[in-house]
Amino acid sequence: MPSLLIIAHGSRRAASNDEVRQLADQVRSQPDHAYDHIETAFLELAEPSIPQGLAALASRGATEIVAFPYFLAAGTHVAQDIPEAIAEFSATHPAVTVRLTPHLGASATLPAAILGVAE
Amino acid sequence: MPSLLIIAHGSRRAASNDEVRQLADQVRSQPDHAYDHIETAFLELAEPSIPQGLAALASRGATEIVAFPYFLAAGTHVAQDIPEAIAEFSATHPAVTVRLTPHLGASATLPAAILGVAE
Repeated sequence: MPSLLIIAHGSRRAASNDEVRQLADQVRSQPDHAYDHIETAFLELAEPSIPQGLAALASRGATEIVAFPYFLAAGTHVAQDIPEAIAEFSATHPAVTVRLTPHLGASATLPAAILGVAE
Repeated sequence: MPSLLIIAHGSRRAASNDEVRQLADQVRSQPDHAYDHIETAFLELAEPSIPQGLAALASRGATEIVAFPYFLAAGTHVAQDIPEAIAEFSATHPAVTVRLTPHLGASATLPAAILGVAE
């Protein structure tokens, strides 16, 4: 099975980074998910970095990683910085496939999730 | 039926604000949603403001509004600024009930939505 890396921006505020880690715990505890491992990484201001997070999954045996940008807006971070960080990892790990998904704000599952939140 | 106000931070980057408006369009086009109206408002840097957005719904007949913070982190914006903006509206519209939901990052529907994104 693939592994999942949830990529957040990262914050100077430790509670915000912990909020992302708790979200990963909740994703991990969903029934019947299809991932060997589910971890978090941060673009900046927190650790692990994206290359570190990908490498940690690879060291646990992952050969196929789904990289999910936990971002609302399609700005430079999503369009450039995250792909560059993944490329940095891939240059040294050619045997690991990393598949980058749409960011949260553009994900097809979000509209229904929003309706569910408000009910 | 209630109305839904999707509250985003707002950005100097017009494309980011448009991304939120497009998301509202997608929520609006979900089958069988239970809202008379679904609109967006912005905490800062874009319009309408939260009080303006709530007042626009009220002027269209809404007496019950669900306010959903489209935010990932439980920072000051979510904990203080949004409740204050809602209170500002409520002071002048006592007949309109505004119910504030958890922010997106804390919503119970998010973990399953994330698993759906990455598939």
